Amino acid sequence: MSDKIKIGVLGASGYTGADLVRLAARHPNIDITVLTANSHAGKPMKAVFKHFSHITLPDLVTVEDADWDAVDAVFCGLPHGTTQAISRDILEKHPKVKIIDMSADFRLRDPVTYKEWYGLDHSALEIQKEAVYGLTERYRHQIANARLIACPGCYPTAVLLALLPLTTHGLIDPDEIIIDAKSGVSGAGRSPKENTLFCEAGEGVSPYSVGKHRHMPEIEQELGVSIGRSDLRINFTPHLIPMSRGELCTSYVRLSAGHSADDLRQALVKAYADEPFVTVADPGVLPQTQMVRGSNYVVVNVIPDRIPGRAIVISTLDNLVKGSAGQAIQNFNVAFGLEETTGIEQLPLFP
Amino acid sequence: MSDKIKIGVLGASGYTGADLVRLAARHPNIDITVLTANSHAGKPMKAVFKHFSHITLPDLVTVEDADWDAVDAVFCGLPHGTTQAISRDILEKHPKVKIIDMSADFRLRDPVTYKEWYGLDHSALEIQKEAVYGLTERYRHQIANARLIACPGCYPTAVLLALLPLTTHGLIDPDEIIIDAKSGVSGAGRSPKENTLFCEAGEGVSPYSVGKHRHMPEIEQELGVSIGRSDLRINFTPHLIPMSRGELCTSYVRLSAGHSADDLRQALVKAYADEPFVTVADPGVLPQTQMVRGSNYVVVNVIPDRIPGRAIVISTLDNLVKGSAGQAIQNFNVAFGLEETTGIEQLPLFP
Amino acid sequence: MSDKIKIGVLGASGYTGADLVRLAARHPNIDITVLTANSHAGKPMKAVFKHFSHITLPDLVTVEDADWDAVDAVFCGLPHGTTQAISRDILEKHPKVKIIDMSADFRLRDPVTYKEWYGLDHSALEIQKEAVYGLTERYRHQIANARLIACPGCYPTAVLLALLPLTTHGLIDPDEIIIDAKSGVSGAGRSPKENTLFCEAGEGVSPYSVGKHRHMPEIEQELGVSIGRSDLRINFTPHLIPMSRGELCTSYVRLSAGHSADDLRQALVKAYADEPFVTVADPGVLPQTQMVRGSNYVVVNVIPDRIPGRAIVISTLDNLVKGSAGQAIQNFNVAFGLEETTGIEQLPLFP
Amino acid sequence: MSDKIKIGVLGASGYTGADLVRLAARHPNIDITVLTANSHAGKPMKAVFKHFSHITLPDLVTVEDADWDAVDAVFCGLPHGTTQAISRDILEKHPKVKIIDMSADFRLRDPVTYKEWYGLDHSALEIQKEAVYGLTERYRHQIANARLIACPGCYPTAVLLALLPLTTHGLIDPDEIIIDAKSGVSGAGRSPKENTLFCEAGEGVSPYSVGKHRHMPEIEQELGVSIGRSDLRINFTPHLIPMSRGELCTSYVRLSAGHSADDLRQALVKAYADEPFVTVADPGVLPQTQMVRGSNYVVVNVIPDRIPGRAIVISTLDNLVKGSAGQAIQNFNVAFGLEETTGIEQLPLFP
Repeated sequence: MSDKIKIGVLGASGYTGADLVRLAARHPNIDITVLTANSHAGKPMKAVFKHFSHITLPDLVTVEDADWDAVDAVFCGLPHGTTQAISRDILEKHPKVKIIDMSADFRLRDPVTYKEWYGLDHSALEIQKEAVYGLTERYRHQIANARLIACPGCYPTAVLLALLPLTTHGLIDPDEIIIDAKSGVSGAGRSPKENTLFCEAGEGVSPYSVGKHRHMPEIEQELGVSIGRSDLRINFTPHLIPMSRGELCTSYVRLSAGHSADDLRQALVKAYADEPFVTVADPGVLPQTQMVRGSNYVVVNVIPDRIPGRAIVISTLDNLVKGSAGQAIQNFNVAFGLEETTGIEQLPLFP
Repeated sequence: MSDKIKIGVLGASGYTGADLVRLAARHPNIDITVLTANSHAGKPMKAVFKHFSHITLPDLVTVEDADWDAVDAVFCGLPHGTTQAISRDILEKHPKVKIIDMSADFRLRDPVTYKEWYGLDHSALEIQKEAVYGLTERYRHQIANARLIACPGCYPTAVLLALLPLTTHGLIDPDEIIIDAKSGVSGAGRSPKENTLFCEAGEGVSPYSVGKHRHMPEIEQELGVSIGRSDLRINFTPHLIPMSRGELCTSYVRLSAGHSADDLRQALVKAYADEPFVTVADPGVLPQTQMVRGSNYVVVNVIPDRIPGRAIVISTLDNLVKGSAGQAIQNFNVAFGLEETTGIEQLPLFP
Repeated sequence: MSDKIKIGVLGASGYTGADLVRLAARHPNIDITVLTANSHAGKPMKAVFKHFSHITLPDLVTVEDADWDAVDAVFCGLPHGTTQAISRDILEKHPKVKIIDMSADFRLRDPVTYKEWYGLDHSALEIQKEAVYGLTERYRHQIANARLIACPGCYPTAVLLALLPLTTHGLIDPDEIIIDAKSGVSGAGRSPKENTLFCEAGEGVSPYSVGKHRHMPEIEQELGVSIGRSDLRINFTPHLIPMSRGELCTSYVRLSAGHSADDLRQALVKAYADEPFVTVADPGVLPQTQMVRGSNYVVVNVIPDRIPGRAIVISTLDNLVKGSAGQAIQNFNVAFGLEETTGIEQLPLFP
Repeated sequence: MSDKIKIGVLGASGYTGADLVRLAARHPNIDITVLTANSHAGKPMKAVFKHFSHITLPDLVTVEDADWDAVDAVFCGLPHGTTQAISRDILEKHPKVKIIDMSADFRLRDPVTYKEWYGLDHSALEIQKEAVYGLTERYRHQIANARLIACPGCYPTAVLLALLPLTTHGLIDPDEIIIDAKSGVSGAGRSPKENTLFCEAGEGVSPYSVGKHRHMPEIEQELGVSIGRSDLRINFTPHLIPMSRGELCTSYVRLSAGHSADDLRQALVKAYADEPFVTVADPGVLPQTQMVRGSNYVVVNVIPDRIPGRAIVISTLDNLVKGSAGQAIQNFNVAFGLEETTGIEQLPLFP
């Protein structure tokens, strides 16, 4: 075990942290050394997540009690707002540690936008500057050299992988992007809330956070970067679906003059020809969350719209894997010079 | 029982037929006299639907063996294409019978459009002419005097109740209507198919029939009527959701110059002020299928879009009730001069 | 409205209270006058349960602010332990009011047993004495004259209706009753808890409270009454199932000498021949929760066991209707001299 | 790739075959060479199972067109009755091939019992004799040398791992074993049937095949072997649960004189101390299917019963993995001298 990379997981009692542990525990180059969860400190991990009853893991400790000397990398699965100071402290005291943050704390480059959407001042702007947005397929080279990787939100990952090649090449009108998103319930986390109870979320569909979802500015930022604009405004309308995992984004776009839905599809085929985790479905095949459950894969496709001059772009992923823990491992692999697919090649679980 | 209205149900072994029976069996003015289901003829209804074990119903017979002399009204829950000849025969031989058709056979006024979408020539054009489109809130007066009522599809009911007041009053651009629809699995019927198995439809979201769904021309027809055009083209993109009942349509619309999302909402408030089954949700309250399950209610609302000049119109209903059997009973009540709400006032079942 | 019976609902913000309101709002002889929910006092009911958006109901008030002078009957849907003092106070000050309690507070006749299982001293023993156990089919005559009706738990209702005719007639060995129960999640209430989150309860089966469930002593009490014993001990093992409503109890019993599974079934047929809500399924038909969802019906049947001398008794009901609010209305009807089936004749909702 | 073991999968279009492919495609020592599915011959695997869109697999062929010369091992995922002749032919012509059969065709040692339960004469008795019952933990040594491995049914695997150590050591009464089983819907296969539609199996619990399930004689056979009897009769009562994967068996047993529930638990602890895939849960921890989903793990535990002299034994597994494809790989590993856990160490997917 001596040549394995030692990792710590901040916030191991949430779904994101747990899925990171699930993957990391079987990753051939990882040694899980520290697991934190302040509200469950002192407990074995299997007391908090029974599906870990089969293996031996470090007991949970508080963030304060964690031994950061013992780790080479830290994965953060904490709620936004709590990661900033901790990350700054770790990087100050342990400059060789790499932080892979799955929270929203370092995704937005503009502190004004951060404050506007998250309601608080950013408290670690000095390290925000060096944070790399962890959309692996887009920022792979920067990630390789980063100390602080801000993994994208689950929705932004699905939307950006589908739309960035299209905006970048000017194939669609960036001012009329309508994204109707559907997500499983795990995206809302494990803290008990009325709206995520089985009886409330089951057997029904609910739009939520319409016009207010915090993944909006993130999508706008990155689509904006691709076309050199900072004033982009999109429609992003999420719906809660009675399933645990999975996310599907149906994006309605206006074609740039002279282009067809097939041109868009070809742009995706070209963009992802060598990507191990992005599958462009065969023509006419409609992406569905069942194609990615439990895996790090993304599926995208483009379908013609009945309204002339428009197209429908569909993308899907597992919000806890490619939308969070899987992509974090992917970035970890890149940052530590490992084969990018190591430990995240599991095929989807179906049914 | 002598003064009750006698009804027959064609196709009582499907979900639509069964939900009609569920409501009709407790309707104070209805006497269920005939139930047909060719593939199950000779069986008691409770052998086909065990939830009817508690009551006494006529045994199932073939369409050919049904005694139409014994009925005042016929509800058709057959697949499209099969209802036309049967309906014509019944009306010819029993001119006082009223037919309330829940299939798609008499919804489209233009036989060319019918053939284009359903792949066959209409075989009863003579009675198609007198068919009234059974969207109760829109065609109540014609329904009162009709012999043949073509109940709308489930999706068209949800979409049209949300959008007709808006197109009628010129509040939105009719050429850019994008409808992202989500439906429970019962809409696909009871015939065993791979894609509606529990293991296939569960724990996942699947777009389907994108650009091809047969409810498209129906929506285009009725929105077109409202603005005097026959060339309307809409986007309608349905998704299969892991729930049995319920449908939610999220419509993305461009506002006509000078109008706001609130204007749209006010138009809905005004249109439905006296309607017993259409609820305009309070400002900001997002309609969800959980608000209507098992009931004849529809909920609509309008939410501002983040993209200037656009709005989001959301509507929801139970596809088997207001989207089919409930609206059929509502039309029956109108056609027979009963109180419109008779027998369909059940409140939604939640959770 | 003047000749309607005025009711109040204590604890209207829980699932049980809400289902009571759903039924009462359409009951022809009921006028809902008071709704209490201390944590939501001041809100309209539709802010707490959106499926009531279609109708007008009294706003929620605190228990303290409720006007008991205005009511003829009180339905209690509060957690156990909180109902005792309130019920005593109401009965003292308003001796003509009838209380139909859906909590567990007055079900156990023996205060020692109550304390053992609920962990606290009973605080209203003076009215406990006059409480009638509200299993309508068993105690109909006493209920007709009661001021305080203690409605049975959901599981006891399903089990007792299945087994009481068998123990009463000595057809089974009372000392070897094994009850494997399966319940939907609504039985756990609406207070957010980790184990009833969609992601935790979905796509899985969990046994719970094995050997500790509080419905055990209630079943033992009533089975014991039927055979004149107070020392009965049963096995009752509940499992949480990923569905919102419904309960199925599979009881494994040893036949008394000389008896067969068919004898048991005949005893049920005879016992329930005239009961409006208890259906004995046809021979060989296996009860399933889909036969009762949303309704006040119970289905029971007996199946031979492969082990000689044993039989399997299966019973099913909707835990929120016959297992709680529906049976409460049924008892209300009896207590106020109405037709017993009034307002609770809805057929099951399927699918 | 030259030193990998080449495998063929018979019946790759079923859920069992697909889960075998899912695991085999990532197994470091396996090269998938042949995939058969007569009804889908000629299609790419991803046309039949879209979740395989991410990888390259052989196209599906008919059984007749399969090239058995090209394989070292054959996994059979065909329906029972169809595997016998094919297996015999393969073994005759390719004596070095090993067959790992996931069907029921070679599980029952007694041809009379086979005919009684499966309704047909066994057509390959000559190879039945050499078949080894593939419960890895019990028959590991025989499996190592077998040419024909008859993997157990999903239920028998769950039940036998829980009960065999108890019967073997005389800790329970073998004549009073009552097994209440709950299974997800995937156990019923992918062929469209009415009872496995989402709308039928969803939001409900249904007992099925009560007293008739074909896993009964298999359980009786193996429990019988453990105590040297062939006349054992058990109760096995399965229920269909609204989830795709997972199985939980709650077994009610009578303790042998002088023994306690804790003795039973200790027997399991001892039996499985060195087993990589069998977890005895901590005292009082109730096994639930959420602990094993998507993995090859089994969880067992014993809980005291309220009735003196009895205990409750609970076991759970994923019916498609340890209950079928995972155990098949485990046996393959044993048969080919690989590390037993190779390729099946994935941790459970939760949520």
